[in-house]
Amino acid sequence: MYHLTALVTLLAIAFYFFTCINVARSRDKTGVKVPAMSGHPDFDRAFRIQMNTLEWMPIFLPSLWLFAIYISDAIAAGIGVVWIVGRIVYFIGYSQAAAKRSPGFAIQALAAFALWAGAIGAVVLRMV
Amino acid sequence: MYHLTALVTLLAIAFYFFTCINVARSRDKTGVKVPAMSGHPDFDRAFRIQMNTLEWMPIFLPSLWLFAIYISDAIAAGIGVVWIVGRIVYFIGYSQAAAKRSPGFAIQALAAFALWAGAIGAVVLRMV
Amino acid sequence: MYHLTALVTLLAIAFYFFTCINVARSRDKTGVKVPAMSGHPDFDRAFRIQMNTLEWMPIFLPSLWLFAIYISDAIAAGIGVVWIVGRIVYFIGYSQAAAKRSPGFAIQALAAFALWAGAIGAVVLRMV
Repeated sequence: MYHLTALVTLLAIAFYFFTCINVARSRDKTGVKVPAMSGHPDFDRAFRIQMNTLEWMPIFLPSLWLFAIYISDAIAAGIGVVWIVGRIVYFIGYSQAAAKRSPGFAIQALAAFALWAGAIGAVVLRMV
Repeated sequence: MYHLTALVTLLAIAFYFFTCINVARSRDKTGVKVPAMSGHPDFDRAFRIQMNTLEWMPIFLPSLWLFAIYISDAIAAGIGVVWIVGRIVYFIGYSQAAAKRSPGFAIQALAAFALWAGAIGAVVLRMV
Repeated sequence: MYHLTALVTLLAIAFYFFTCINVARSRDKTGVKVPAMSGHPDFDRAFRIQMNTLEWMPIFLPSLWLFAIYISDAIAAGIGVVWIVGRIVYFIGYSQAAAKRSPGFAIQALAAFALWAGAIGAVVLRMV
């Protein structure tokens, strides 16, 4: 079983859900009504934070699980925690200004790449 | 094996695909040409229905499967059916007016939360 | 184990990631600054290529894996490769003009449908 990876998956989903809630809260603050998806710089950044997190979910989650299955539950979960931390840093930075989104983005990109590269390396090793 | 959860997964994908088809049909009706993603209130709502369904897929599907694996295939599939029903109610309501999107949204959010909460509870119980 | 399906999953993720990188490159070329998500026809098409690939990930990946588990790892992976090829053709066509996006779209849609239909057929057969 992959208890740690399962736990990190559910925590990552919880954080992603928080970025969705934040868009709804930003609608109240900025007055951008549904179904409009832009209209105020603060709302636009809140929406981009959610969208970017969504965009990385199909990179992160399959890589996380294949890494866990082919290499190690504990290491996958550890790198997964780094990914979530990077996402939180990204959220805080980008909420302040578009220029402050880079450090968090880099952390989560490196974590996702480590999971992807480890997984593909391990899969190929098993096949040869 | 998790036959019921697999079946509900494929039915959820089929409904999501229907929301994508509906955006293409809405382009024909409203004259909003690709690659534009807004321009007519009816099109905007059709697009938001698809997007919101997409946004919830990475919450719903992993929670559904972790619930099935850690608790029960049949219960996971049952709650999954409630999620799909909520999505259909959301689709019908939001297609008519933005103000009518709430009941369906609440149903699917409660179903997804039940799956998430059950899964994280069961994972933590196994670890301690 | 499902080595071939795992490999195709990671290659599909790599191609999807490339469509994300392409949006960032298109920002440099067209001068559309974050968090804006439109403003130049070339940028709009690059963004739609990424979004459409993202939109199909929750159709493709679960169908691919359920097909692999219920039918065959090798056949799932083979159809998965066709999906990636269709996505590459779509990328090349849509990058040139919106009207040239159809052939690649049709290839990837047929591949995804084959995975979905095979999976649901096999699941239902197992249940009866």
